[in-house]
Amino acid sequence: MPHEIAIVTEQDLRKVVKLDLAVVDVVESAFAALASGKVVMPPVLSMAIPEANGEVDVKTAWLPGFSGFAIKVSPGFFDNPKLGLPSLNGLMILFSAKTGLVEALFLDNGYLTDVRTAAAGAVAARHLAPSRVQTAGVMGTGVQARLQIEAAHLVRPFEQVLVWGRDLAKAEACAADISARLKVPARAEADPARLVAESQLVVTTTPARESILKADWLHPGLHITAMGSDQDEKNEIEPAALVAATAYVCDRISQCEKLGELHSAISAGLWQGPPPAELGDVVLGKFTARRSEDDITICDLTGTGAQDTAIATYAEKLCRSVGIGSLIAA
Amino acid sequence: MPHEIAIVTEQDLRKVVKLDLAVVDVVESAFAALASGKVVMPPVLSMAIPEANGEVDVKTAWLPGFSGFAIKVSPGFFDNPKLGLPSLNGLMILFSAKTGLVEALFLDNGYLTDVRTAAAGAVAARHLAPSRVQTAGVMGTGVQARLQIEAAHLVRPFEQVLVWGRDLAKAEACAADISARLKVPARAEADPARLVAESQLVVTTTPARESILKADWLHPGLHITAMGSDQDEKNEIEPAALVAATAYVCDRISQCEKLGELHSAISAGLWQGPPPAELGDVVLGKFTARRSEDDITICDLTGTGAQDTAIATYAEKLCRSVGIGSLIAA
Repeated sequence: MPHEIAIVTEQDLRKVVKLDLAVVDVVESAFAALASGKVVMPPVLSMAIPEANGEVDVKTAWLPGFSGFAIKVSPGFFDNPKLGLPSLNGLMILFSAKTGLVEALFLDNGYLTDVRTAAAGAVAARHLAPSRVQTAGVMGTGVQARLQIEAAHLVRPFEQVLVWGRDLAKAEACAADISARLKVPARAEADPARLVAESQLVVTTTPARESILKADWLHPGLHITAMGSDQDEKNEIEPAALVAATAYVCDRISQCEKLGELHSAISAGLWQGPPPAELGDVVLGKFTARRSEDDITICDLTGTGAQDTAIATYAEKLCRSVGIGSLIAA
Repeated sequence: MPHEIAIVTEQDLRKVVKLDLAVVDVVESAFAALASGKVVMPPVLSMAIPEANGEVDVKTAWLPGFSGFAIKVSPGFFDNPKLGLPSLNGLMILFSAKTGLVEALFLDNGYLTDVRTAAAGAVAARHLAPSRVQTAGVMGTGVQARLQIEAAHLVRPFEQVLVWGRDLAKAEACAADISARLKVPARAEADPARLVAESQLVVTTTPARESILKADWLHPGLHITAMGSDQDEKNEIEPAALVAATAYVCDRISQCEKLGELHSAISAGLWQGPPPAELGDVVLGKFTARRSEDDITICDLTGTGAQDTAIATYAEKLCRSVGIGSLIAA
């Protein structure tokens, strides 16, 4: 008995799924579900393909209260730019959580991941940043540098943006893009210490393997979201900062202790206490990370299958409601 | 830069991909690649969804010499029959092994898995069964009972088929189907010991949790392929048989010691020797399982991502060559 599957391309998804407060709320609900303890989220399936300088990751999660669950496949083939192709691609498949039937195929080339990753940054900023942010800083100059700032601005409408990158020209281009997009003054800042000193909210978005944000730079009233590390050898925040902050929170303990900033702090022997709180605990009010405007908070995001399930379920409803995508009987 | 993705439904795949010697050769080449040692095949990603009595498995493998690699998603939702839906569904995604770009989506509802699983049985029979098989027996009465016999007949054109099942009526129906399909006499056999005694080739295709084929029943000139067990609690062959046989071979040691007949033999304390040979070693001539017509051989198949990559790569070429499937720019 064939059933209808919606097939939606990146081009169509970009028309329908926007980085807005509705997406932030959906991703926030995924973190709340994660903290409920009823989620099923297996470890990431990861396959390296040395002969092609490639890798592929598969993530999934089942969340209570969601009508579907997503399986996301993310290939990264790092010689692709030599062929004029992007390194990152991929798709999401949405299955009915009741029957396991395929409901939608999102040929998104990573677009939904970009959006749900930025939305998680907004969830972190909403619950952890000081209530008033005048200046936001971003370290890194790629797609997520732009999107993280755009997402954070939805929940903390700051008045200035500082951008640091190893390449000043790229930082300037990124600042120009942000300024044009948000209508907020943005400029490149060559000194990362000064960027942190002047900001109340800092997002790190780099693939750094040695810390780019030092513990000495922490100051009262600072929130940091570190979203760049997703492999054991990556590290953006000096491990001592995790202990020095008033509160350190992560998206998923089991991932962050292997792939996130927490991994580096544990490896350095600096994190010896009990496991940290998760962002979902903060969303649900089970853990209060910030008790005053002067507290210093850090949120470590490695990216979860729960976010994929949340955005895929949301995207499917949006696409059906506006009639976008091809339907195929299969 | 959009590229074209082929989307092929089960209905179209059934027109193009047949259980024939070409498919057997393709799956044999996957076993050869597995034995070459260069394969990348991560452990299966498995997620249980207790609230829906469901589960989902994800398999993948990269094989040297294949232009693509497949990721297969297999949901099993066991309350679906109450809704008039099949329990098993799923799809395969074929990626370019060079760029990681999606090349094809096979909305096959498990059809390609059925074919590649049966083809593996033919590979086992080709390399392990006595050269002359007069009677083939099958235990189990489902889709694989029919397909395994059909596949084995491609490589050992036997003259008679015996079918045993817990439900005699189902065994009779299965025998009738096989007889109509292969134009070979087939009948139900109520006594499994007699089925084994009269057969030179036996395939077990059940989800049994207690052995249905006893060690005492082994006789000279017998080959057994056990393909039913794919979970740690399943067991078709009495563990003592694995040791009593001249040679026991498995598709993948790392899987069979967890999910296959080998798992039961290890748990029973009966398998204490070195790891067994893999089917790929036999294909490549690295290991000779059968030295005479009187030897007794057993092959344990749990199903590998390598077979999925092989059949998906093959299906994509076939579909492109005959122009079947929809192309979508994504």
